[in-house]
Amino acid sequence: MSDSLEEEIVSIRRHLHQYPELGFNEHLTSLYVADYLRKLGLHVRSGIAGTGVVALLDSGRPGPCIAVRADMDALPLQELTGLPYASLHEGVMHACGHDGHMAMVLGAARMLTEAKAQLSGSVKFIFQPAEEMLGGARHMIDAGVLESPRVDGIVGLHLWPDLPTGVFGAKSGTVMASMDHVDITVQGRAGHGAAPHQGVDAIIAAAQLLTALQVLVSRESDPSEPVVLSMGSIHGGSLPNIIADTVEMHGTVRAIDQGTRERMKRRVTGLAEMVSSGMNAKAEVKYEFGYPPTVNDAHLIDLAEETLSSLYGKTAIQHLPHSQMTSEDMAYYMEQIPGVFLLVGAGGKERGEYPLHHPQMTIDEKALGLGAVFLANFVSNYQERKQNC
Amino acid sequence: MSDSLEEEIVSIRRHLHQYPELGFNEHLTSLYVADYLRKLGLHVRSGIAGTGVVALLDSGRPGPCIAVRADMDALPLQELTGLPYASLHEGVMHACGHDGHMAMVLGAARMLTEAKAQLSGSVKFIFQPAEEMLGGARHMIDAGVLESPRVDGIVGLHLWPDLPTGVFGAKSGTVMASMDHVDITVQGRAGHGAAPHQGVDAIIAAAQLLTALQVLVSRESDPSEPVVLSMGSIHGGSLPNIIADTVEMHGTVRAIDQGTRERMKRRVTGLAEMVSSGMNAKAEVKYEFGYPPTVNDAHLIDLAEETLSSLYGKTAIQHLPHSQMTSEDMAYYMEQIPGVFLLVGAGGKERGEYPLHHPQMTIDEKALGLGAVFLANFVSNYQERKQNC
Amino acid sequence: MSDSLEEEIVSIRRHLHQYPELGFNEHLTSLYVADYLRKLGLHVRSGIAGTGVVALLDSGRPGPCIAVRADMDALPLQELTGLPYASLHEGVMHACGHDGHMAMVLGAARMLTEAKAQLSGSVKFIFQPAEEMLGGARHMIDAGVLESPRVDGIVGLHLWPDLPTGVFGAKSGTVMASMDHVDITVQGRAGHGAAPHQGVDAIIAAAQLLTALQVLVSRESDPSEPVVLSMGSIHGGSLPNIIADTVEMHGTVRAIDQGTRERMKRRVTGLAEMVSSGMNAKAEVKYEFGYPPTVNDAHLIDLAEETLSSLYGKTAIQHLPHSQMTSEDMAYYMEQIPGVFLLVGAGGKERGEYPLHHPQMTIDEKALGLGAVFLANFVSNYQERKQNC
Amino acid sequence: MSDSLEEEIVSIRRHLHQYPELGFNEHLTSLYVADYLRKLGLHVRSGIAGTGVVALLDSGRPGPCIAVRADMDALPLQELTGLPYASLHEGVMHACGHDGHMAMVLGAARMLTEAKAQLSGSVKFIFQPAEEMLGGARHMIDAGVLESPRVDGIVGLHLWPDLPTGVFGAKSGTVMASMDHVDITVQGRAGHGAAPHQGVDAIIAAAQLLTALQVLVSRESDPSEPVVLSMGSIHGGSLPNIIADTVEMHGTVRAIDQGTRERMKRRVTGLAEMVSSGMNAKAEVKYEFGYPPTVNDAHLIDLAEETLSSLYGKTAIQHLPHSQMTSEDMAYYMEQIPGVFLLVGAGGKERGEYPLHHPQMTIDEKALGLGAVFLANFVSNYQERKQNC
Repeated sequence: MSDSLEEEIVSIRRHLHQYPELGFNEHLTSLYVADYLRKLGLHVRSGIAGTGVVALLDSGRPGPCIAVRADMDALPLQELTGLPYASLHEGVMHACGHDGHMAMVLGAARMLTEAKAQLSGSVKFIFQPAEEMLGGARHMIDAGVLESPRVDGIVGLHLWPDLPTGVFGAKSGTVMASMDHVDITVQGRAGHGAAPHQGVDAIIAAAQLLTALQVLVSRESDPSEPVVLSMGSIHGGSLPNIIADTVEMHGTVRAIDQGTRERMKRRVTGLAEMVSSGMNAKAEVKYEFGYPPTVNDAHLIDLAEETLSSLYGKTAIQHLPHSQMTSEDMAYYMEQIPGVFLLVGAGGKERGEYPLHHPQMTIDEKALGLGAVFLANFVSNYQERKQNC
Repeated sequence: MSDSLEEEIVSIRRHLHQYPELGFNEHLTSLYVADYLRKLGLHVRSGIAGTGVVALLDSGRPGPCIAVRADMDALPLQELTGLPYASLHEGVMHACGHDGHMAMVLGAARMLTEAKAQLSGSVKFIFQPAEEMLGGARHMIDAGVLESPRVDGIVGLHLWPDLPTGVFGAKSGTVMASMDHVDITVQGRAGHGAAPHQGVDAIIAAAQLLTALQVLVSRESDPSEPVVLSMGSIHGGSLPNIIADTVEMHGTVRAIDQGTRERMKRRVTGLAEMVSSGMNAKAEVKYEFGYPPTVNDAHLIDLAEETLSSLYGKTAIQHLPHSQMTSEDMAYYMEQIPGVFLLVGAGGKERGEYPLHHPQMTIDEKALGLGAVFLANFVSNYQERKQNC
Repeated sequence: MSDSLEEEIVSIRRHLHQYPELGFNEHLTSLYVADYLRKLGLHVRSGIAGTGVVALLDSGRPGPCIAVRADMDALPLQELTGLPYASLHEGVMHACGHDGHMAMVLGAARMLTEAKAQLSGSVKFIFQPAEEMLGGARHMIDAGVLESPRVDGIVGLHLWPDLPTGVFGAKSGTVMASMDHVDITVQGRAGHGAAPHQGVDAIIAAAQLLTALQVLVSRESDPSEPVVLSMGSIHGGSLPNIIADTVEMHGTVRAIDQGTRERMKRRVTGLAEMVSSGMNAKAEVKYEFGYPPTVNDAHLIDLAEETLSSLYGKTAIQHLPHSQMTSEDMAYYMEQIPGVFLLVGAGGKERGEYPLHHPQMTIDEKALGLGAVFLANFVSNYQERKQNC
Repeated sequence: MSDSLEEEIVSIRRHLHQYPELGFNEHLTSLYVADYLRKLGLHVRSGIAGTGVVALLDSGRPGPCIAVRADMDALPLQELTGLPYASLHEGVMHACGHDGHMAMVLGAARMLTEAKAQLSGSVKFIFQPAEEMLGGARHMIDAGVLESPRVDGIVGLHLWPDLPTGVFGAKSGTVMASMDHVDITVQGRAGHGAAPHQGVDAIIAAAQLLTALQVLVSRESDPSEPVVLSMGSIHGGSLPNIIADTVEMHGTVRAIDQGTRERMKRRVTGLAEMVSSGMNAKAEVKYEFGYPPTVNDAHLIDLAEETLSSLYGKTAIQHLPHSQMTSEDMAYYMEQIPGVFLLVGAGGKERGEYPLHHPQMTIDEKALGLGAVFLANFVSNYQERKQNC
């Protein structure tokens, strides 16, 4: 990669960093991205799923279609990095690296466009809205981004300050957990606090239920298969001396395979209903599957490792010992088609001072060029390999 | 009692019923009461502890001083009785019988004034604000109502729709429970819901604590001594996928003796602190003694029963098998001086359709005359008896 | 009562105290009692329900039949009083006062026999086996002791070291609690301790169930109505590293009315079953009603108090503020016919140093004569009163 | 390997299978093993740590010393396989494959002895007693088996019916979990079941503690790091109507790194003590570290995989996705010196019908030759590699 392209990628990232926008509101971002891609001469469609952008690089030669995905949304955080190019949008910050994701994919788009003569098949660049909570990926898929032409494989990156720059985190199988949502309402019956027997204490029923739910992780799960059940909020009752008639709890469940997700749904629901009944109360459980686990395709993870190895040497690959328990809506694409998702070390010498989602999080911008070059090379290798199948 | 006095008492009660006022805001009520007492020719002081009124009937002869107490405040309830004399104050209602308490004491004041020639010593009529939650009695005591002249004994009544009209509920020892306040804050440490080990889950610590607190009643209390621990509200955390760092709980404790109150304070505090520490969290407990138990003086309850027996026959007395778990700020006076507190059946033939504090609660007004006559006679008997000591 | 009779009662009690026998094994005791009664010239039947003895004193005049009941069994305790007349039976002791109960009833039998000329109707003296745990009373009833002649009322006493000598503890309504038995088996599924997900942990299910059961007392019971649920034993699993497949628990429930007993049965069973199901385990609950509450007849308790009052003055009566939570199989008779059961203070000046069932428990023998005289007078008063009905 | 050696290995295994012996009682086994090794001409010492056997194959040339380890003990199970060579010892069975472990190591000893001319350094064959629960390895180490000559590395195998024959299970880092022991005694205070407030209920305290302990796994552990806390037995109280004064619980803790082991020790102890104190009881915790985690040396696992790859091809290696939660006393050697421990697929086509420790467990004997050949080749490769360092 030329120094000038590397500088351009950094400059793109800094620009986007200054104008962060929340999920489904990435208007300026979308304009910027589409403009850049159009100037490359690609066929660009914008306004997909609201603010999404898709660009097609068609080599004109037969061959497969591979997609390269970036996410565009930022977080509702007030940036505290003190950087000269810090967010100019009050209370919004690119604290999850999506600015860099876009810069890397735009850089790769430029490299691939310039090397179009050597390509076969086509490359689809997908810039999606709303990765953080709202599942923008699903909206993009519903809008048809995996069709016309039909996408055969997909690749995506996540900047990762917990890994040193120059290292890529790779994992076969599940790399990111699923994220499901559980809402439990415990219904008791109000009454005077001095006469507990005339009511049904929803707070005690909820407490009993919360302690019982722990066994789903501590006793009912295979110790070797990570699963998390976190109930993050509880709200019940209003006055100290009135028996609470309702308690509402909201939580999240993380797992790395579909079987565990289904078991947790069945057991959280069954346990909550039965234990509450035992307490004379009634639990209503709303349990919704959110982001699926992000599962790397066996062949594509091998191809990614080969690409990394030949570009940066074997030591550039760090095999992650286990799946992250955080989640990614990249998973939605990878449910449909084979894909690979890697972590791009961006922590500088060892690891960054602040984690993702922290108002002081920064990334080592040296990582951006490394990521862009990988993407371009991975796409070439993919097309070549597929061509020969 | 003359028919006209009985009618007057009913009419007083209906008037007061139409103009209910909340605790420490009993301005119209206070004016009305003071005016009535002044017209009787008593020495009246108003504006005590805000809206309190005290009137002295001095026989001019040596003898003890006995107080007769009424409470004046109403409840923040929208009346739904449909009575012609229903509350004219939006959202405020005399749903705890205080209108009738005042009417009975005013009636007794008139009877005693008319019979002043037969009295010795003096009678102090105390109309206090804010019985419901704010402990108006304590403010009255602080303002000196039990002094100048020093009060030797005190009597009070509570209208009781759960007993039939014509019956008085009597109990030796504790007749109403204490009411103490407990606030528990469980402090954990926030963190990402996908990484529970990096935070401390305040919700689970609180759940564990709530289940543990049950044993203070179920195992550590003498089964024969009523005690209630009701935690009426719980609030913790905000987002489903963030570990809650704080949970706040508020509750009430009812007991019938001081030893139990102190034990509960010590144990709730100790258990909460230790169990939370065991869970790696930290509990802060604020435990405040509120209304004491209302404990009838042994001699005065006997005198009250004799008085009732001679007025209405033995069957007019119903010995309550146990203390009510509700509370009364009458208890503050009775901590200082011997006193007696009785329940006045006002439920009509059997018992009223609606309980106290209900927006449709009514009382059988026949009870008012019975109560007023009892008060006047109890005062006479008390003075006579004491005189002879 | 003559001094000599008083001495005789003491001497009877000391004799019986030396030869204590366990429930349904009261062979020597039974012989002794029957012999004494025969010597009085009464019609005696022995061998009832094994070791029971019944004697009839028939005045020859028409009138009701009243029963006077004593229990004969001792406890499996090694006596440690050091008394000269301490138990000669290794490991068995009259630590619950039954020796004195028999002495008092035999003394009353002698007094009434000597006063036969003044009696009408008849008196049945019932000496039953096995009060402590095995419900000897029920066996006596099944054997027909309340028939031929039909018994109209019954009286019984319990020596009570917690009350001073000279005082009788009386309570209207329930004086002793019911005693019901609960056995819970929690069935899980065994498995390797390193693979909890392949088994079902019966110990955790039982723990959850035990904490949940507390609310039946702490939240679901009227605070003013005493109820106890004590699970006294738990046994589950065998090896540290094998998931326990079964946990067995045994307990006792005490209550003072039938409604509470039935509620507890329904709730213990329902809660255990549902909470266990919620934990993927299965609870089997065996719940058996044992001794009913001992409920004093309203007229007979009045008559007992009148008798005490005229014999020993009003101060000899101590109104018990609440039911004892211990139980009595006297209750079985009193389910069938009106009865009265009183506590006889035997603690000396204030109260005894050791409680009932303690290996150093002693009684003040002055209580025996007072009890015997009461029984004789109560019987006379009963016959006289009934005669006039 | 010659067919005849393969047959010999199978025949050794069948012989040993017929005469299984429990830990530290491997007398016949020890004689058999020592005899075989002596016949090979090796220098054999027996009676080490009771029944252990060690043989040295010295090439006479300078070089490192590598140990090959087998375990000799069987399980207290009645065999139900119906095999012609089933156990002849009532109630004892080689249900954990140790018969095969010995056969493989003896086979490797023969192969290496025959190829002595090509070897450098020395090979120590270690046959240890009592792997199952009693940590025979530690006794062997204490007896000096890693010295004279000093052992530089160690290799061991475990037959694994859960993997198909022909496949070896390999894992870098921890391959087997640690196994620690926890004993908790909860001390309350006995009392009458009808008077819970006069005792301290150890059963309720234990129940509360058991539910609280779950959070150490469900909330305080990194979801990606397997840890198990299983309390396998609970025993407390004796009579249904006496408050239990003591509850005893015994359990096992499995973890894959030392940090987790220490955290669990600190937290189980702290939580138990604090929660029990909160319940007015007292917990005494005895927590003993048992078998450490079995951690493969990074270089040796690579060497093992290379050896397997060149012998049987890449597909013979199955990378285990996570550590087993079962434990191995092989770990004691591997705490002292670099080592490698592999699983040898012996389940036939896919996987065996019955798991290890099952009375019907069988192994596919084809696995034995594969294992023996691997051991011999691994030893050669090790010596060669080390020689060149």
